[in-house]
Amino acid sequence: MPGTLYTLGMGPGDPELLTLKAARLIAAAPVIAFFAKQGRPGHARGIAAAHVSPTAEELRFEYPFTTELPVHDTRYLADMAAFYDACADTLATRLTAGQNVALLCEGDPFFYGSSMYLLDRLGARFPSEAIAGVTGMSGCWTRAGLPFTHGDDVLCVLPGTLDEDRLTERLHGCDAAVIMKVGRNLPKIRAALSRAGLADRAVYVARGTMDDEHIVPLRDLTTQAAPYFSMVLVPGRQRAR
Amino acid sequence: MPGTLYTLGMGPGDPELLTLKAARLIAAAPVIAFFAKQGRPGHARGIAAAHVSPTAEELRFEYPFTTELPVHDTRYLADMAAFYDACADTLATRLTAGQNVALLCEGDPFFYGSSMYLLDRLGARFPSEAIAGVTGMSGCWTRAGLPFTHGDDVLCVLPGTLDEDRLTERLHGCDAAVIMKVGRNLPKIRAALSRAGLADRAVYVARGTMDDEHIVPLRDLTTQAAPYFSMVLVPGRQRAR
Repeated sequence: MPGTLYTLGMGPGDPELLTLKAARLIAAAPVIAFFAKQGRPGHARGIAAAHVSPTAEELRFEYPFTTELPVHDTRYLADMAAFYDACADTLATRLTAGQNVALLCEGDPFFYGSSMYLLDRLGARFPSEAIAGVTGMSGCWTRAGLPFTHGDDVLCVLPGTLDEDRLTERLHGCDAAVIMKVGRNLPKIRAALSRAGLADRAVYVARGTMDDEHIVPLRDLTTQAAPYFSMVLVPGRQRAR
Repeated sequence: MPGTLYTLGMGPGDPELLTLKAARLIAAAPVIAFFAKQGRPGHARGIAAAHVSPTAEELRFEYPFTTELPVHDTRYLADMAAFYDACADTLATRLTAGQNVALLCEGDPFFYGSSMYLLDRLGARFPSEAIAGVTGMSGCWTRAGLPFTHGDDVLCVLPGTLDEDRLTERLHGCDAAVIMKVGRNLPKIRAALSRAGLADRAVYVARGTMDDEHIVPLRDLTTQAAPYFSMVLVPGRQRAR
């Protein structure tokens, strides 16, 4: 009997925003796997800390890049594919041996998550179950005190990697907007928000729900160096009711 | 000392998708409040069942309508405002008396949640804290096995209450789409998806993550009577990586 691959949403960062189901499955897993940046302990692993069995094997998958590369860059795509292949091969040995694996994913696994690429490679060969998690954007708008979508508001979620014209065009068509993956895209995002007339409503959130969270109106943000996983939030219409 | 109003995201329906934080705050709350449809036990209350203290006071807020009304209908807006005023007044008596209140909200509280209207009325008068939850859409796309957004996909969340032309126009501009509030809007939603060329990618989900969930490609759905809280999902581009 092969093991089951559990792909677990770990929520936005506060360890208490883990779901009861993820906590239970982590505690029961003989193998824990997670992604981490080079030289970092791994954000998802940190969220899971209180639940990991002391006897669990831990598989740390370190991203091959330290800086952001364009998502259409050929070298980036080829290197990431090779990286995901190697991660999937490692998990396959444990699953084949009958061990369940808990793959820890920041936020919600099917919402811009790296774990989807491992599930693509393993889902047809092994039993699998994905568990929804609290998204980073929910964590951020809640901590920012921004009731976000009301009534018939349209919400757009826009990666900051889009070019300025497309960002501006998309912003014109929504009532509420979340711009993810800020990082070095910050100046472009500011420009698109200004062109769409939304700069004064925008709020910047970094490390939302974590101890060192940083929440500030975008117009008051002085840094040009935002973390990649920070986001910019434009709340929807606050209709009286 | 007044009590604190805790606005708690209860997740999409599976009681195990509650966060550790919401479970802890429910168990500690002397007063539990929740919305319910007429004649129904209350969905959020059901999710909380395992955690509510046997000594807690329970406040059940029954919506004044049994059928869907247009969100711009004048009578609807006036009646809902009076309803929310009365709910807020009820909570204010407990908060003034120094009792903490746990207001239970399906999904994520700041994402199309009724609780936002109570927080609007009480947030300036009493201490308050909102706790993010797993959204209904995350629960649904996860249970449907639909990895949803990748790379630089744009996600649009569209209420099914929009008119057909605006739905169609919005669908043209996104890679992945979630159409909420299906209910009697189902024929219009089908028409908009067809016009946008997305009908074949659309998946219908009702009661996602619950024991009686119903997940089916939209083209295979025979009913014309969908629940209001069902949704239609169009996953983003499944780029190989």
